[in-house]
Amino acid sequence: RTLRIGLIPGDGIGKEVIPAGRKILEALPASLKLKFEFVDLKAGFETFEQTGAALPDKTVEILKNECDGALFGAVSSPSKAVKGYSSPIVALRKRLDLYANVRPVKSVMTAKNPIDMVIVRENTEDLYVKEEKTYEAADGSKIAEAIKRISEKASFRIATMAGEIALRRQKIRESGAPSIHKSPLVTITHKSNVLSQTDGLFRATAREALAASRFSSVGVEEQIVDSMVYKLFRQPETYDVIVAPNLYGDILSDGAAALVGSLGLVPSANVGEGFAIGEPCHGSAPDIMGKNIANPIATLRSVALMLEFLNEETAAAKIYAAVDGNLEEGRLLSPDLGGTATTTEVVEDILRRL
Amino acid sequence: RTLRIGLIPGDGIGKEVIPAGRKILEALPASLKLKFEFVDLKAGFETFEQTGAALPDKTVEILKNECDGALFGAVSSPSKAVKGYSSPIVALRKRLDLYANVRPVKSVMTAKNPIDMVIVRENTEDLYVKEEKTYEAADGSKIAEAIKRISEKASFRIATMAGEIALRRQKIRESGAPSIHKSPLVTITHKSNVLSQTDGLFRATAREALAASRFSSVGVEEQIVDSMVYKLFRQPETYDVIVAPNLYGDILSDGAAALVGSLGLVPSANVGEGFAIGEPCHGSAPDIMGKNIANPIATLRSVALMLEFLNEETAAAKIYAAVDGNLEEGRLLSPDLGGTATTTEVVEDILRRL
Ligand SMILES: CC(C)[C@H](C(=O)O)[C@@H](O)C(=O)O
Ligand SMILES: CC(C)[C@H](C(=O)O)[C@@H](O)C(=O)O
Repeated sequence: RTLRIGLIPGDGIGKEVIPAGRKILEALPASLKLKFEFVDLKAGFETFEQTGAALPDKTVEILKNECDGALFGAVSSPSKAVKGYSSPIVALRKRLDLYANVRPVKSVMTAKNPIDMVIVRENTEDLYVKEEKTYEAADGSKIAEAIKRISEKASFRIATMAGEIALRRQKIRESGAPSIHKSPLVTITHKSNVLSQTDGLFRATAREALAASRFSSVGVEEQIVDSMVYKLFRQPETYDVIVAPNLYGDILSDGAAALVGSLGLVPSANVGEGFAIGEPCHGSAPDIMGKNIANPIATLRSVALMLEFLNEETAAAKIYAAVDGNLEEGRLLSPDLGGTATTTEVVEDILRRL
Repeated sequence: RTLRIGLIPGDGIGKEVIPAGRKILEALPASLKLKFEFVDLKAGFETFEQTGAALPDKTVEILKNECDGALFGAVSSPSKAVKGYSSPIVALRKRLDLYANVRPVKSVMTAKNPIDMVIVRENTEDLYVKEEKTYEAADGSKIAEAIKRISEKASFRIATMAGEIALRRQKIRESGAPSIHKSPLVTITHKSNVLSQTDGLFRATAREALAASRFSSVGVEEQIVDSMVYKLFRQPETYDVIVAPNLYGDILSDGAAALVGSLGLVPSANVGEGFAIGEPCHGSAPDIMGKNIANPIATLRSVALMLEFLNEETAAAKIYAAVDGNLEEGRLLSPDLGGTATTTEVVEDILRRL
């Protein structure tokens, strides 16, 4: 099978980690019978400054018509609002209907307090519809409003995805993979005590989706978002799959990343029907850009996650194992993990372990 | 001076901790020349079931016309949406224009990694305006929308309050109180990379408010909310004053509470012009209700915080010191802190130290 992968480095350290993602795909063992073709694509703030569009139509068209998957690095947000600029990754998620943002947060199982959860974030609506307006109050002062939109359809499909992921994780556990969980659990996160209609709809629909008979082995519970953040830090080992509307998912995944020591470890995949974009959870990190010290692991794991959603689970497992090998040995670590290894050295160590 | 204090226990453990709050006010040394009168007031889910109103008009009227301050316990949220019920504390904040929710999160200074921050949460708008509607899509499925409203006025006054609090904390430090901070810092939290108009307005207005010359000694920085949660856990000692729109403030304060070991330690004050309601950050905790094991410290500290905003700083300092004494000794702790003391025993120990 030949997979055609779009490469969108974006800004900052995106340009250092996406090439690492390409390298690991090229280094996969021939026995897997997987071939890759790559297409370099543009998006980001630099692209905006050069072309006037943060997400050129051409990038979207090529992804849609020619690619099986893609890797996205990171984009810089301007430090002040810039007319006409708006986040290309948010736009890309909507334009390709990549309705799920899947973010596994896992420590190595040899850690003192191992954790192993995945945050399944709705990826197309909520406040991310970006329908905003500004007007003047009677006294001339400004008031701005944004719409938070929650639909039954998007809530149903994201909760269904969460249920499927819980089942898949359980299957992997039953095949003998070491794990801290005994049985699958989905935790629905919302704030329906304040937002009874929007988050109320998310909550009720997620409950309904997870009541389907094929999820009968999956435990279902819920947490109000503020309490969820509290519990995430007090008892992270409890959580298996967390499903949340877009904004809470964004916040929870950064919070969970803190638990494993660095955002530089946490991957994500933006997933739609038959298409997936791997994306490290960290940003463009202008402060460390160009120094060859960015942690490539979030990207390498994002490559694996993308492969999982393209049904290449064996290839994905090889990458995860190579990364875990590097972390468990702990000899070649990037500075965010307290080490002194360069990006290049970490990548080489992981390629050796493939 | 005689202060008239409304007591609103609400539901669950609210009924166990608010009496403790009353006790500590009554036990303050006579030398302070402070007298208290108390008015018992109703609100909460139980009140809703009995009277049809979660926040009776009478409660609001008495607070407005007769009281100098109040203590609010907690309210239970029904496990399913109940027609006509909506959170009385959210309503109370708006009806009394208690525009700031001030939440200090502080470990004892003898802790291994001491932290000392205060979250200043806007308390009247954002998604808490609760303007929601539900409609049907063309295919009959449901869509719900909520308004997130951010005004220049509310943003300006909450950022100004944050600046004032930063200055006040600095003054207390300069008077010799032990602290981990050298200079005042306000961190503005927002998500303006997605919500350029609403959170953009919050960010720009907060910057403007904090650029006032009387805040020239106050450092100002900003964090995007997801990154804020990450940093809160990775380097909590950095933060002095965090100012945030309503919902982010809600989430951040629960997150910060996790850092000090228990929500049972974290107080808050809902503050308006010349009026303050102390409120523990924990909820009604139905699971431990009636067992006399709730941690009263969040409430006792909320009493002190209320007194600070009623300009009774000496009385407040006495309460804080008595609570710190109990925690530093660590002999009589409630179960949430790993101890075995009852609510009554913790309260008695703290009263002895006044
Ligand atoms: C860069 C930003 C628009 C984005 C988001 O909020 O989704 C990022 O935080 C993420 O989590 O991918
Ligand atoms: C009970 C709930 C409505 C409330 C809020 O969201 O403000 C609570 O979480 C709080 O922080 O006081």
